[in-house]
Amino acid sequence: MQDELSYVKDETAIPSLLKKAKDDKIETVWDRALAMQPQCGFGEMGVCCTNCSMGPCRIVKISPDGPKKGICGATEDTIASRNFARSVAAGSAAHSDHGRDIAEALHYAAEQKRPIKDEKKLRALAEEWGIQTEGRSVEDLASKVAEKALNEFGKPFGHLQFVERAPQKRKEIWESMDVTPRAIDRDIVEVLHSTHMGCDADYRNIITAAVRAALSDGWGGSMIGTELSDILFGTPVPHEVEANLGVLKKDCVNIVVHGHEPTLSEALVLAVNDPDLIEAAKQEGAQGINLVGMCCTGNEVAMRHGIPMAGNFFQQELAVVTGVVEAMVVDVQCIMPSLPQVAKCYHTKLITTSRKAKIPGAVHMEFDEKNSVECARKIVLEAVMNFKNRTDNVLVPEEKVTGRIGYSVESIIRALDGITNTFAHQSGTVKPLVDAVKSGVLRGVAAIVGCNNHRVPADQSHVLLAKELIKNDVLVVTTGCGAHACIKAGLMSEDAVKLCGKGLATCCELLKVPPVLHMGSCVDISRILQLLAIISKYMNVDIKDLPVAAAAPEWMSEKALSIGTYAVASGIYVVLGVTPQITGSENLTKYLTSDMENIYGGRFEIESDPIKAAHKILDHIEVKRKQLDI
Amino acid sequence: MQDELSYVKDETAIPSLLKKAKDDKIETVWDRALAMQPQCGFGEMGVCCTNCSMGPCRIVKISPDGPKKGICGATEDTIASRNFARSVAAGSAAHSDHGRDIAEALHYAAEQKRPIKDEKKLRALAEEWGIQTEGRSVEDLASKVAEKALNEFGKPFGHLQFVERAPQKRKEIWESMDVTPRAIDRDIVEVLHSTHMGCDADYRNIITAAVRAALSDGWGGSMIGTELSDILFGTPVPHEVEANLGVLKKDCVNIVVHGHEPTLSEALVLAVNDPDLIEAAKQEGAQGINLVGMCCTGNEVAMRHGIPMAGNFFQQELAVVTGVVEAMVVDVQCIMPSLPQVAKCYHTKLITTSRKAKIPGAVHMEFDEKNSVECARKIVLEAVMNFKNRTDNVLVPEEKVTGRIGYSVESIIRALDGITNTFAHQSGTVKPLVDAVKSGVLRGVAAIVGCNNHRVPADQSHVLLAKELIKNDVLVVTTGCGAHACIKAGLMSEDAVKLCGKGLATCCELLKVPPVLHMGSCVDISRILQLLAIISKYMNVDIKDLPVAAAAPEWMSEKALSIGTYAVASGIYVVLGVTPQITGSENLTKYLTSDMENIYGGRFEIESDPIKAAHKILDHIEVKRKQLDI
Repeated sequence: MQDELSYVKDETAIPSLLKKAKDDKIETVWDRALAMQPQCGFGEMGVCCTNCSMGPCRIVKISPDGPKKGICGATEDTIASRNFARSVAAGSAAHSDHGRDIAEALHYAAEQKRPIKDEKKLRALAEEWGIQTEGRSVEDLASKVAEKALNEFGKPFGHLQFVERAPQKRKEIWESMDVTPRAIDRDIVEVLHSTHMGCDADYRNIITAAVRAALSDGWGGSMIGTELSDILFGTPVPHEVEANLGVLKKDCVNIVVHGHEPTLSEALVLAVNDPDLIEAAKQEGAQGINLVGMCCTGNEVAMRHGIPMAGNFFQQELAVVTGVVEAMVVDVQCIMPSLPQVAKCYHTKLITTSRKAKIPGAVHMEFDEKNSVECARKIVLEAVMNFKNRTDNVLVPEEKVTGRIGYSVESIIRALDGITNTFAHQSGTVKPLVDAVKSGVLRGVAAIVGCNNHRVPADQSHVLLAKELIKNDVLVVTTGCGAHACIKAGLMSEDAVKLCGKGLATCCELLKVPPVLHMGSCVDISRILQLLAIISKYMNVDIKDLPVAAAAPEWMSEKALSIGTYAVASGIYVVLGVTPQITGSENLTKYLTSDMENIYGGRFEIESDPIKAAHKILDHIEVKRKQLDI
Repeated sequence: MQDELSYVKDETAIPSLLKKAKDDKIETVWDRALAMQPQCGFGEMGVCCTNCSMGPCRIVKISPDGPKKGICGATEDTIASRNFARSVAAGSAAHSDHGRDIAEALHYAAEQKRPIKDEKKLRALAEEWGIQTEGRSVEDLASKVAEKALNEFGKPFGHLQFVERAPQKRKEIWESMDVTPRAIDRDIVEVLHSTHMGCDADYRNIITAAVRAALSDGWGGSMIGTELSDILFGTPVPHEVEANLGVLKKDCVNIVVHGHEPTLSEALVLAVNDPDLIEAAKQEGAQGINLVGMCCTGNEVAMRHGIPMAGNFFQQELAVVTGVVEAMVVDVQCIMPSLPQVAKCYHTKLITTSRKAKIPGAVHMEFDEKNSVECARKIVLEAVMNFKNRTDNVLVPEEKVTGRIGYSVESIIRALDGITNTFAHQSGTVKPLVDAVKSGVLRGVAAIVGCNNHRVPADQSHVLLAKELIKNDVLVVTTGCGAHACIKAGLMSEDAVKLCGKGLATCCELLKVPPVLHMGSCVDISRILQLLAIISKYMNVDIKDLPVAAAAPEWMSEKALSIGTYAVASGIYVVLGVTPQITGSENLTKYLTSDMENIYGGRFEIESDPIKAAHKILDHIEVKRKQLDI
């Protein structure tokens, strides 16, 4: 937890609104984090167990008299690994259940003969999954693909389809560890079972179960979410977008769409362009309707429609504090339950829309895929009719930047082809990227992903880390709140080239890409896996052999732990900027930060200093370069 | 946590072995519970949250200065309900994953043309599930039923098959609340998603998701576990069995099978009867091989094979302390991770057998369904060869009783028919039971289920509650550790009739059944649901209208919370003898103990005094009788 002063000098639009919040007597996440100090050390170390009603138990290591085992006999290794595994399972569940919703939306769209935006991708996926494509209508194919995707969650036999995308060596490692994901829900449920009281007590075995559940996310639920979203709503292509809270417009009806799933927001994008609703807004005295996005829903609509990116996790309360938000429309995940309290101090309507996420004090307008347009219209109308309730107590921050986003795997490959000046085509090749890395012009690639967390200054770790990496000729790819942080810091603009090392700068100028590529929302980290798999296969090596790394410098959610775990198990070196709740178990800590490398080729590193983290990544990349003899 | 003196006067065989443990300097669950005092009040009240790495957060209600919200803004209602829901999900996962293993075993048995013990039940279930039975071989049918069962875990459309067993009114209640279970794994995973950081914040909605996951257990995973176990291994029929630690034999190779799944233990039952292995035991100086069961695995093999019931949850360490156990063979759930520590002080080999449950310090001999006989033989041989390592430091307690067990629904209905002296047939009718209840000879039926817990004296709450109920003409059905407690207290013997009220005594004598009916393991609580559903349908009322109740006086595990929740959501009044971790939220506590009755007809009651609990149950039964006008 940092003092508020930490934010004064940055580019986040946070300081001015934080001051307004204070003036308006609004409690924010920073206030609550301060009030929570000191936080429970047992919980922070992961040695508190509430898995049965004989507990809660805690392991006291610091004093010789304290209990060294839970009442059942569980050691700190057992307790900490069970807690970690359950977090991973919950993270995988969140991502994957999102993927399922997309599959259901595709299934429904097919049934209703609604538009399927990327037919080419649909046909390619159908062929990949062994579905007969010839002579089949797009709806028929979409229906079959959706059904096959839905069966990935619970099929009783076999393993996940997307496992086949991984390089052969990777698949063999998974097979040897018996972690090849089978069915997404099953792999998650098995973690709950094996961490139940009196079940698995071996921390290595518990983490093995967690690994499978995590792989079910990365190579399962998340990948289904991404692929089917692209098919249904379109695969992102590069374009300019505005970002930061300055995208809110004083004279418009402002609607912030916040959460994670693109289904609702896609419908809202249509609704805000409805002439009747725009006319209604004008009747209410507004100049129009301004839809902006927050967190991953923000990323989804920015990537596909150029909807401005209002902000990330730690800006959600501040968006309301501006006083110009008529409606904040939320679906699932990362929505602070504090929002209704903030909203009620202004005129903002907080509208919950998912059956899975209601918040006391919010207006609940359930989104029904079957009546998506009608639902979205009602929500927009609710916002429009709320415009008149706006008071004079408003502050729209000046901070607003422009950046280039939309880097799906397909877009990256098309952009890459620019290096060798070959013509742009759909399939393309990663050869130019590989050549640039082999020649040393680029040293490697790093992913910066994850959330905000009061334990580090908001956005700062993302940004400092990214700057240090691009300065050293490492191409950065990013998603989620990390992407928001980077675009706000100008790292997706043309100017960012000035911050790059010579090699990376040359590549960026040639390709006309920024040095930090926005690849989408958190589920879209599956795009990164897919890209790495393509590169590995092209180079005929395993993912673990590539000069790449990942970092989650400000991670906060269980989803981030699932992501970190599937990345490690995919062979990736993952630097966490916030310490996970594992340090009460030396064995577990060693297992995650060291032993796993011997098994999976990837491991966790814990480093809260973003500059040090960057140099650890650079060192790792150089080691991998050396091993590849490049 | 009670002082050890609490155990001196009971029938549990605990005092003498606890003294021996002390002499042998063995740490037991009671020692660890004492060392853990005082336990964390935040955890006990359910207001500690570790669902993201901004936490741990805790709500301090007692002091005005303490934090009233988590860092994200979560209230005590949100935090406590999320914790409760996740426990229910984990409990449902444990039961259901067990059910899946049985379905896989049946599938494999069909493939290998191994014996299917209850073909009649197989055909009945196939017909119930709409599988064509005519002209089909038993293997073919078994394969189809197993596949259909496996699909219940993850089918993308529709709802669980066994929902159709519930009375119409019950199904309507579920439908109106949108809690009709769909696919077992999915319903569990959705709880993890909706309790993820920033998702559901409404305690009522969170509990609604937990209810569906719990119903997926009771009317899904557990019911599949029971039904398919009966089909594969045989449906229990009444017979005598010995119980308590006195079933261990000084002069034999003693093998304790402990855990939950019948697959391994069924193979062990075969192996211990192998003449070669018996001969090997004799060669080692033993009189033979004595297989006994503990916890729910104990219940499974006692119900089907008359294998002696050695003891329940709190006796597992003491079984080793006897010094005569050559091998304790465990699979999953409720196995104390302390066991290897105890075992290493004697000659006992602790053998883990499940991929899902390894314990550091144990010998791992993985059970493979495909080579079940060979695996079991190896395990038995390991025990036999360990006989020679036994020392003189042995104490086999004298406590041993005989009881009549084996009360599957089918057995109960057959026994009931005895009342009216009709001939015994397979299908039978519950008319005699209903008549007895209507006439008032029996006041009603109560289930006593669940675990042991250091918070109450071991077994005492089970036994005192059961005695008070039968004294007042309430027929008791029991499973799990509750069943062990009751048989040890003599409540399944002929003599128990003396403890009954006049009405119940008359029924027991007429039917030749004990007043406390052993219905099986914890997953077999699905038998109780099935029985209640049959009675409800016969009486043309809902389950909530019946003069019945349930109690978990010493519950400990998350499975018990899942059971309690599905029972409440099935319309049953459920008395918990140990307070769940919910009391930090007044709203949640009120919801679970009061509001739910208005929705589901069932509710939780918290009452640690078993006599008071009995009278609350008796009062509830009388209210229901009055409402039924009987």
